[in-house]
Amino acid sequence: MKKNNSVSISVIKRLPKYFRYLGSIAEKGIVRVSSKELSAITGLTASQIRQDLNHYGCFGQQGYGYNVKELLNELSKILGIDKKYNVIIIGFGNIGKALFKYQGFRNSSYNFTAIFDKDVEMIKEFTDEVEGYDVDYLKEYLQNNKVDIAILATPKQVSQQVADILCEGNIKGIWNFAPEDIKTKNDVVLENVHLDESLYTLTYYMNNPKDYISQE
Amino acid sequence: MKKNNSVSISVIKRLPKYFRYLGSIAEKGIVRVSSKELSAITGLTASQIRQDLNHYGCFGQQGYGYNVKELLNELSKILGIDKKYNVIIIGFGNIGKALFKYQGFRNSSYNFTAIFDKDVEMIKEFTDEVEGYDVDYLKEYLQNNKVDIAILATPKQVSQQVADILCEGNIKGIWNFAPEDIKTKNDVVLENVHLDESLYTLTYYMNNPKDYISQE
Repeated sequence: MKKNNSVSISVIKRLPKYFRYLGSIAEKGIVRVSSKELSAITGLTASQIRQDLNHYGCFGQQGYGYNVKELLNELSKILGIDKKYNVIIIGFGNIGKALFKYQGFRNSSYNFTAIFDKDVEMIKEFTDEVEGYDVDYLKEYLQNNKVDIAILATPKQVSQQVADILCEGNIKGIWNFAPEDIKTKNDVVLENVHLDESLYTLTYYMNNPKDYISQE
Repeated sequence: MKKNNSVSISVIKRLPKYFRYLGSIAEKGIVRVSSKELSAITGLTASQIRQDLNHYGCFGQQGYGYNVKELLNELSKILGIDKKYNVIIIGFGNIGKALFKYQGFRNSSYNFTAIFDKDVEMIKEFTDEVEGYDVDYLKEYLQNNKVDIAILATPKQVSQQVADILCEGNIKGIWNFAPEDIKTKNDVVLENVHLDESLYTLTYYMNNPKDYISQE
């Protein structure tokens, strides 16, 4: 656990949003964008946006705004999307399969190198693009192969046990879809996608509209 | 857009976590739990937990703590999980299919009533549990059927267009998986699951470990 963080979580959480917004602006062929224009799209204030981007050394040009392509490049470096990652999936149920097919992964940054499940035959029936292994082989696999990111999509009963093997196996990050809080060690970064929590948040707001602030 | 929110987002975001923690405590047959014990599991301070729960009128008994079952019941009411919701899916690709099969939905609160896609045959091949329709029929369907929650899992190019139809169709909430920011109206609540942003956050922290605070 590190506490000496210099960038606040709320800034970090906005970076992928900027990346997405700029991506759609670039798709439309737009070359330059001002923080004021970004403000109109994102709903954030122009000064907030400038402050966030300045923080990473992305300075727009007074009166000209930002060069969209350059800013996209900068953001992709900041987010680490300019690098390549070896990715494995553990637990190849419906969520695991959906993530394997997920378009967001189908760019050059993420390279699936192995899939693990108790049912190896099922993996092989689903895909021949990536090697499928019994989850019992995970520990040995990690000793012999460089893995950066593990997608954890196992049943919650075994998620911590698998996470322990992953953290001992020199991986760098876990993207956890198991509906359970897991603990990591050895500086392994954890990012949770708790679908149940997201769904409950939705029903909470549906039942408590006075607490709802629209997301823009 | 409502701004007179009386409960802060951070409190609301913790409620589903309490619900999950208490669920696993209940599974173990534990009858009573103190805020101190909850603190040890959640990593939040006991006073924070008490304050959050007090806010909703859930008061533990001095020296006895909380009755686990009662608190679970209260939280399920607060989160609105004690009610029943008619749910439809729009866009039946890999994510749509995974959510349809998602265990979190397989409790009595969520009742799938229809699935929409451009490819109706594909829906019918996948399941005969729920009726499949062409997405062109969505508007008419909403005029004739009560729908509470719509899961939006379409390609991003059409997500706003579908969201507009949903917001005109008397639904209450949209659970959006399309990698696009959509706008809602008519008090429709929006909850986004932006998988791409979550993945980029993971790679950001992997590349900026000094900013990482472990999630506990």
